[in-house]
Amino acid sequence: MKIAIVGSGAIGLYYGALLQRNGHEVAFLMRSDLEVAKRDGVRVIRTDDEFTLDRVAAFGDSEEIGVSDLVIVSIKATANQSLPKMLDPLVDETTQLLTLQNGLGNDQFLKARFPNNKVFGGLCFVCLNRIAPAVVKNFMKGSVSIGPSDGADASEAETLVSVFSEAGVKARFEPDLLGIQWKKLVWNVPFNGLAIAAGGVCTDVIVESPELCSEAKALMEEIMAAANQFGYTFRDGFADYQIEITQPMGPYRPSSMIDFVEGRPVEVEAIWGEPLRQAKAAGVAMPKLEMLYALLKRICK
Amino acid sequence: MKIAIVGSGAIGLYYGALLQRNGHEVAFLMRSDLEVAKRDGVRVIRTDDEFTLDRVAAFGDSEEIGVSDLVIVSIKATANQSLPKMLDPLVDETTQLLTLQNGLGNDQFLKARFPNNKVFGGLCFVCLNRIAPAVVKNFMKGSVSIGPSDGADASEAETLVSVFSEAGVKARFEPDLLGIQWKKLVWNVPFNGLAIAAGGVCTDVIVESPELCSEAKALMEEIMAAANQFGYTFRDGFADYQIEITQPMGPYRPSSMIDFVEGRPVEVEAIWGEPLRQAKAAGVAMPKLEMLYALLKRICK
Repeated sequence: MKIAIVGSGAIGLYYGALLQRNGHEVAFLMRSDLEVAKRDGVRVIRTDDEFTLDRVAAFGDSEEIGVSDLVIVSIKATANQSLPKMLDPLVDETTQLLTLQNGLGNDQFLKARFPNNKVFGGLCFVCLNRIAPAVVKNFMKGSVSIGPSDGADASEAETLVSVFSEAGVKARFEPDLLGIQWKKLVWNVPFNGLAIAAGGVCTDVIVESPELCSEAKALMEEIMAAANQFGYTFRDGFADYQIEITQPMGPYRPSSMIDFVEGRPVEVEAIWGEPLRQAKAAGVAMPKLEMLYALLKRICK
Repeated sequence: MKIAIVGSGAIGLYYGALLQRNGHEVAFLMRSDLEVAKRDGVRVIRTDDEFTLDRVAAFGDSEEIGVSDLVIVSIKATANQSLPKMLDPLVDETTQLLTLQNGLGNDQFLKARFPNNKVFGGLCFVCLNRIAPAVVKNFMKGSVSIGPSDGADASEAETLVSVFSEAGVKARFEPDLLGIQWKKLVWNVPFNGLAIAAGGVCTDVIVESPELCSEAKALMEEIMAAANQFGYTFRDGFADYQIEITQPMGPYRPSSMIDFVEGRPVEVEAIWGEPLRQAKAAGVAMPKLEMLYALLKRICK
């Protein structure tokens, strides 16, 4: 399968490398890491193994890649305005598109541009840091949940799930894409947000501070109430479970916090702004998220 | 009247200078500005006038000052644990104590130490910055509201009001000290707090950002609801009025924000922690203040 990875940050590098290792023809669209990847390949470090792909097909322009069977969009949502130009050369009528981007609104964005193509969304519950150019470190293997955007075929989403499963990624089919997008926000909204707003701290600081941990849980309750409004329900204790799975991560730096401290754009609208707007429009009160969003919008300006 | 100023930051310098100019025998207890004040005096810059007191009685140790008629406490509340040692040499049974400190709990602290003395609290609604050693700049003259702490005599508070009035300070008697302490928090909690939490911004950024201004007003509503619970009521539109009086201040740096950006201790407990605890104990929900306090406690660590 010819797979184009659009946006080769931590997520793109990691899944692209695993898919290439499993025999797919993977093309990485890159910017900052391009020369290093061409020279040294892509390196993946995990807790129990590490590997280097000595040769990768790395490109700076999607014209050089051409039409692909599958396009995985892993560019930051803050750069969505540049996406059409990057995607057009990669897409014909049979191309499938899968966005692994954070937050809400990204699959709708692709569907609006390519209304006749199959569009899917994938949610990566994983801990990854790009620790050097073309080097990605994985802290927790986690899983990928893939579902069809409005109008896409569920069975084709299941085929995509197999592509990931066969590459060694725990992947599952999720019929309710919007639901799992909200589900991922249950972690991302508090931990990415508080890590920035509390001054650039790691997740251990949040779970170990009684006040910050209480705010994290209150934010989760707001997100879950909003998700309920959109038809997604959570099992009892889901917020506590988020804290429990975060504890063993230790001094983990959430991706948005890394973006922030390194001076890169932060996905403020995709992760905090759009959920706040959608929830408020659905009548859900979000006093904590309002405060966090107001601060982040300024801090990340 | 022999007046000792304990803590010669912006507040202490400003009111001490005005009182000395009006003929009182003022002694400034100082630390960082001591040598400059001894050599150059104290300078006050206001929008419509400025003056220098060439000679001031500046001391580094309150033993050198001795017993005073009035002790004005204007040290940071974060340093309250050092207060007894500073105050003991200044106080005999006739000494009056007036705290001009921010936040809640400071007059009770003095009363606990000097149970037989008259203790008063004063709230300074004023914009001051100490712009250089022993130089204080005034942006808005504002007013001082003075009231008796539990058990102190109202008529003596009125005498204190005259001391300030005669020195050219708009001063008023307030029988309900706790009420005006909450009233001052209506401005201090949002503007000092958001200025820090939004990354070290001035008040103009807060009033000009729709999101931050909305959060500022929501914080004010919480503080006013708490004050109501303690018997203090506000006229309609009081929160909007706070925004209105803040607009002409322009790029004003609230005192806590200056402390924060200059690496000095911030009065997190007096301004945010103690009000939150008192309000929650009185059954008032404070979702916004909880979030702000959790962030500030970490940011100002």
